Amino acid sequence: MDFNKTAEIVYGNIEKVKPVIHNISNIVAVNDCANVTLACGGSPIMSDYPQEVEDITSLCNGFVINMGHIYDYLVESMILAGKRSNLLGHPVILDPVGAGAAKARNAAIFKVLDNVKFSVIRGNISEIKFLATGSGSAKGVDADEKDLVTDENIESVIALAKKLSKKTGAVIAISGETDIIADDKQAYIIKNGHAEMAKITGTGCMLSSVLGVFCAANPENILGASAVAVSAYGYAGELAYKKILQTDGGTGSFRMYLMDYVSKMNAKLLEEGAKVESR
Amino acid sequence: MDFNKTAEIVYGNIEKVKPVIHNISNIVAVNDCANVTLACGGSPIMSDYPQEVEDITSLCNGFVINMGHIYDYLVESMILAGKRSNLLGHPVILDPVGAGAAKARNAAIFKVLDNVKFSVIRGNISEIKFLATGSGSAKGVDADEKDLVTDENIESVIALAKKLSKKTGAVIAISGETDIIADDKQAYIIKNGHAEMAKITGTGCMLSSVLGVFCAANPENILGASAVAVSAYGYAGELAYKKILQTDGGTGSFRMYLMDYVSKMNAKLLEEGAKVESR
Amino acid sequence: MDFNKTAEIVYGNIEKVKPVIHNISNIVAVNDCANVTLACGGSPIMSDYPQEVEDITSLCNGFVINMGHIYDYLVESMILAGKRSNLLGHPVILDPVGAGAAKARNAAIFKVLDNVKFSVIRGNISEIKFLATGSGSAKGVDADEKDLVTDENIESVIALAKKLSKKTGAVIAISGETDIIADDKQAYIIKNGHAEMAKITGTGCMLSSVLGVFCAANPENILGASAVAVSAYGYAGELAYKKILQTDGGTGSFRMYLMDYVSKMNAKLLEEGAKVESR
Repeated sequence: MDFNKTAEIVYGNIEKVKPVIHNISNIVAVNDCANVTLACGGSPIMSDYPQEVEDITSLCNGFVINMGHIYDYLVESMILAGKRSNLLGHPVILDPVGAGAAKARNAAIFKVLDNVKFSVIRGNISEIKFLATGSGSAKGVDADEKDLVTDENIESVIALAKKLSKKTGAVIAISGETDIIADDKQAYIIKNGHAEMAKITGTGCMLSSVLGVFCAANPENILGASAVAVSAYGYAGELAYKKILQTDGGTGSFRMYLMDYVSKMNAKLLEEGAKVESR
Repeated sequence: MDFNKTAEIVYGNIEKVKPVIHNISNIVAVNDCANVTLACGGSPIMSDYPQEVEDITSLCNGFVINMGHIYDYLVESMILAGKRSNLLGHPVILDPVGAGAAKARNAAIFKVLDNVKFSVIRGNISEIKFLATGSGSAKGVDADEKDLVTDENIESVIALAKKLSKKTGAVIAISGETDIIADDKQAYIIKNGHAEMAKITGTGCMLSSVLGVFCAANPENILGASAVAVSAYGYAGELAYKKILQTDGGTGSFRMYLMDYVSKMNAKLLEEGAKVESR
Repeated sequence: MDFNKTAEIVYGNIEKVKPVIHNISNIVAVNDCANVTLACGGSPIMSDYPQEVEDITSLCNGFVINMGHIYDYLVESMILAGKRSNLLGHPVILDPVGAGAAKARNAAIFKVLDNVKFSVIRGNISEIKFLATGSGSAKGVDADEKDLVTDENIESVIALAKKLSKKTGAVIAISGETDIIADDKQAYIIKNGHAEMAKITGTGCMLSSVLGVFCAANPENILGASAVAVSAYGYAGELAYKKILQTDGGTGSFRMYLMDYVSKMNAKLLEEGAKVESR
């Protein structure tokens, strides 16, 4: 289907459903994740207390697990709410922050993956490579430069994504200068976004929360909804960068304008800026 | 007394006392709550460690308990510092976030209510209804639409607030399109505020922190100070909305301008915008 | 050496090294600390989970311990990662938030000081006085007014800083209207900054994170790098204040512009505004 038509349907469903999204996030990005959930048309609940997360997630339409922080009680809450979400058929998103960076972190991530079935797994190329192969070279929370997606290696990255999708049943979303969104059969290559997004914290975490909204309102088309979310969020970043050039702003202004443009984005505006290729 | 005259006294006392406010908040809104405390003339301390909260609250003029997060150690800290504040005669504010949404949450909230005496309890209509009746239909952290205050049901909502005030000894502040502030005898009906405030996270949490500042500096007039706080905060929201229309901003800009106008608000500016009725 | 020349070298090294900085921060300021780390040219990792902090800090170039929150597991993580950083020779910064304000807090701070060797200790005058003398009168997280640095007592404050530097081996950075940066031999007196910085939360915490970036990229000149960091951050505050006067902004705008100017600051811009005296 035509991408613009897909975007129209995806945004229409968000407006209709106004999905309530349960997020277990990290202390760095949790406020930004709640605000971006609202900005793109959802309603956030950020509960992470083990004794209530099953009740809470039952009130929601989707669930986002962000593994930026991995205290024992958080991992317990992720699994409890994840299993409940799976039972209820809610889309569940995984953001495996820093996969590969430390042993305890890797163990926590694989424990969550073993217990919860995901609709989307979103990370940078180093994180996704680590999940796919069990090895890799994360530079902490940022992608390693030698992992970056280029015109030369893009086919092998798509193959890696499709393979991980087949193994996990999830749509795989790889974030970077070029984004790859793939299930086991089909892939979108997206060239929206701006380098300035790496100069503020939590842009990846926020995108995972945005994916929660888009997928919860469009459970029948997780791949399409994910591609629209990634393209729209990236285009918002491009518009925010234009705005700081006009206002002589820095990274503080950029952060605000990114939120502004996520809140103003819609299918019509996206049509002007989407850089999406399907294969 | 005339509302404008009350506002003048209330703001004057804040400037004189510069109250230091102890907040136990949640990871989503804690930064916004600290900043809004500063913006409206107070000084925040956000400590929640059980072993120090009694010492900390003893250095302060008031205490705000926000139950957005309810880990066991937080509830322990809330009760320890709440009891100490009661002993010292400090105004204590309760924000029973999500009351009614989950069993463990409800139990934690009633435990705090059983152990601490409050000067003000602030929540949305669903939360307050749940506290008053022990039942209700919270939609997570937002009010249920069928609970909303209208011209038709406003008298019964005021009666409910007065009854809960009589039972708890606290001023009851119900937030929504129409705000109700009541003790067991008198009520203020306030029509300030803007729908855009529901499009950013933590606006309710921030209002509870603002109430902490206003009440700590005006312990002799908790009802009046609460009404001024609610009207002033709502009017700041209206001015922030005007500003984003002028600057073509989105929810990111709105959040910043809300803080700007809270920091610029005073009795004189409020006089131009207060929409307050007393009965 | 000439201060402008030092600033040029210090900024040059940040650009060359792009230091990755491990921060253990507090829930109030952690997002601001991550963003300011990026704004001044570093890359932040905010991990505080005991089981991974040694692995994480090994991936980094420096480590910042902010004691705004002192849960047991946080103090454990601070000590584990601090010892590992010491072994690896990474610069380690201490922000002893609220030293003197509560017994449990003081005990935690001294425990960390006993176990970790610091390159820089940064606090307000009340916090530093407490560390130096074991007594003092912190007003919670703000400096007590009767402790403030004046032209009359500046020599005795410098002597105190030099003495604490001799005892700890760390550069001592005292923040206030006048900043003192000293090792056991030499001191910088810095008059940059603006009173508006006290009207937003986390400005001290953010400065400690900035010090992490500057020192990690300049381990051979901790005193000089600290002086440049403090002057640059203060000057960014002055420029942010000018900007809110132009735009009729409040504390919300000030917070954003402060981040903007930290991200735009460099040796050349600093040359126009540095108010630094060495003795």
